[in-house]
Amino acid sequence: MTESVIDMHTLGRQARQAARELARLTSDEKNTLLHAIAASLRRHQGAILAANAQDYAAAQAAGLTGAMLDRLYLDADRLEAIAADVQNVAKLANPVGQVIDERQMYNGMKLTRRRTPLGVVGVIYEARPNVTVDVAALCLKTGNAVILRGGKETMASNIALAEALREALISLGVTPHAVQLIASPDRDLVRQMLRLDSYIDMIITRGGAGLHQFCKEHSLIPVITGGIGVCHMFADSFLDLDVAIPVIVNAKVQRPTVCNALDTLLVHHSVAPDLIPLLAEALLPYQVEIRADVLAYPYFAAAAYPKLLHSTHEDFGTEFLDLILSVRVVEDLDEALEHIADYSSGHSDAILTLKTSHAERFMNEVDSAAVYVNASTRFTDGAQFGLGAEVAVSTQKLHARGPMALEGLTTYKWVGEGRWHVRP
Amino acid sequence: MTESVIDMHTLGRQARQAARELARLTSDEKNTLLHAIAASLRRHQGAILAANAQDYAAAQAAGLTGAMLDRLYLDADRLEAIAADVQNVAKLANPVGQVIDERQMYNGMKLTRRRTPLGVVGVIYEARPNVTVDVAALCLKTGNAVILRGGKETMASNIALAEALREALISLGVTPHAVQLIASPDRDLVRQMLRLDSYIDMIITRGGAGLHQFCKEHSLIPVITGGIGVCHMFADSFLDLDVAIPVIVNAKVQRPTVCNALDTLLVHHSVAPDLIPLLAEALLPYQVEIRADVLAYPYFAAAAYPKLLHSTHEDFGTEFLDLILSVRVVEDLDEALEHIADYSSGHSDAILTLKTSHAERFMNEVDSAAVYVNASTRFTDGAQFGLGAEVAVSTQKLHARGPMALEGLTTYKWVGEGRWHVRP
Repeated sequence: MTESVIDMHTLGRQARQAARELARLTSDEKNTLLHAIAASLRRHQGAILAANAQDYAAAQAAGLTGAMLDRLYLDADRLEAIAADVQNVAKLANPVGQVIDERQMYNGMKLTRRRTPLGVVGVIYEARPNVTVDVAALCLKTGNAVILRGGKETMASNIALAEALREALISLGVTPHAVQLIASPDRDLVRQMLRLDSYIDMIITRGGAGLHQFCKEHSLIPVITGGIGVCHMFADSFLDLDVAIPVIVNAKVQRPTVCNALDTLLVHHSVAPDLIPLLAEALLPYQVEIRADVLAYPYFAAAAYPKLLHSTHEDFGTEFLDLILSVRVVEDLDEALEHIADYSSGHSDAILTLKTSHAERFMNEVDSAAVYVNASTRFTDGAQFGLGAEVAVSTQKLHARGPMALEGLTTYKWVGEGRWHVRP
Repeated sequence: MTESVIDMHTLGRQARQAARELARLTSDEKNTLLHAIAASLRRHQGAILAANAQDYAAAQAAGLTGAMLDRLYLDADRLEAIAADVQNVAKLANPVGQVIDERQMYNGMKLTRRRTPLGVVGVIYEARPNVTVDVAALCLKTGNAVILRGGKETMASNIALAEALREALISLGVTPHAVQLIASPDRDLVRQMLRLDSYIDMIITRGGAGLHQFCKEHSLIPVITGGIGVCHMFADSFLDLDVAIPVIVNAKVQRPTVCNALDTLLVHHSVAPDLIPLLAEALLPYQVEIRADVLAYPYFAAAAYPKLLHSTHEDFGTEFLDLILSVRVVEDLDEALEHIADYSSGHSDAILTLKTSHAERFMNEVDSAAVYVNASTRFTDGAQFGLGAEVAVSTQKLHARGPMALEGLTTYKWVGEGRWHVRP
């Protein structure tokens, strides 16, 4: 497939037209479509796994690391899990058509607010073939057309997956333009996509900080940014260390490579002499590297913690995505709040405290998508929150914040039903 | 005031700091502040009206037109109305702190979604001094700091109004940086403002299409666009003309200079021979200029309608803001829906019909912020809808759509209250 054959305007116009068709489907019709997609994925197993093997070999040859290779890898079990997930999406309640408000206006006119599809969603994502199917399923469920632009390392897999989706759409008489894949690694197509504001209603970006910044700079379309978590935990002076330490350890080590893992621990100075030795002991088996500030360092050193460094300024406000923890001893809650206001990415931050007034202040004053009291930051996730799905974890404040699921793929319209009402 | 003294980064940082202070105020404290602002506006009447007289004289000298002059003009009555409006904002229910959802997670952890202030709102608006006060009051009510950039023609008025606001803030010990005015006509400051994404959470744009496009192009911050209404009405074949004609007339003439006024009438071909002569008679007293397509023209001509032109392509998809109406005769509902999909700005569109299935299809398929059945498009307005206020009428689909009031100035956060919960 050469770059020159992709005309982004045509693609956008087709998506817009497809969105009008999708808006007319009932919930049952959309669920039938999702089941057809699951079946089609299973039928295409051979082609999909062959394409994925090709991507995998190329990625290995290109020297990709273990975690990235693992993310792009598919086998029969993983493909089956993807198909099963599509069937699960069919079971979720559909927000489209929901009446949010219903009221009588002063003149007797009936006014309702109804949830509707957004229209066309553009998704720019990393080299994860499961996202291609997940996002398509969630968009179709909510009546949205979708334009997909996945990582170049999974291009062959995505083409094969898109073909399976296309066949399912056609088999039910739905336009195949409802799901379109930009099957080219040309970055200029992303730039063009970001300017299609007459066709695309929302851009979802999944990837690193560089991609987010690129989209912000170039997009004429509203962009949902997220997925970058510089997460904090504040261990207050009012604390039972026996229950607190396991929460800190869980937030850091349960899955260190993801956005809701802990990056920075702030410790109240009065509890530091007791907490840090116990924490050092608890973290040791996981080989967590500690980057301690000038006040925290001596306690770790006294505990003879082996993987210990002095923190630099860059160790605060950094998302490690690794078994690394920066630790700072603070004077009090105010200093902790100040630190979080300065360094948090607004994803997930937690306080560990037995004092209700401190918990209250933390919940009110920390301006993040998710704020926790006496719990791990690792809970910020659509499935954990019971949303049944997740298209992104938004760290911006408009439209959707935190785990974003089906509702985030909808908008609403106001509907006024009159009896020949005129404005006085 | 010279341009060089305005450091936008300082202004942004001060606003961010002020937002943290405002987030700590109770609803009562914010309402007290609004009453203090109303009182301060009354105390500053002399200075404000003198500054406004200066703006008015300069605008007259610059040759501004009647409607623009009228919008920037203040007198004692108008200023009193502005102060009274601020007191009314104090009476509105405050969405901040509202719990949207409350649930128990699978592990017993309590999870709530709470409405919170957005943080810092930037507003770029036309030469209307009342907006300076309205928007500041709504932002303060919802705990947001605001950066205001009003039209250059009302700079002196805005400086005087901002001084009254500042005095009220200081009198209650609230930081005056909660409301900051960019007191310079330098457009480059707008460009700088649009890049302050680390300090400003949302930009609200009120003005013409050029300003909206400028903001979309240059902003790193989410922008609420709106206020541009290319509004349609479709007169179906199933119709009682006696009740339908007054609705068309109301939508066009009741206030033609605003965004929810009717621009294009689509007439079902079977009703055109009866409807158009009656419409011509009803519009005549208002001197509405008709721009009729090739099928509609003969009916208006036969009625000897005096202000009649042949429509050009530009007459469809244009917001007239004037006593001008484009008219097209269509084959059926499908053609009307197609026309609206192609030309509507997504603001307000209406159908006049006695047939329920047609009304249903119109409500479902027209993708606009407000959709009406048998009612005038003129109702799309925060006050008419009973929202008590309006900061903008959004024609985009994310965050807020249609009349946007206090709720549109908030976001939410997820709050997890655990008992030392860890992720399994």
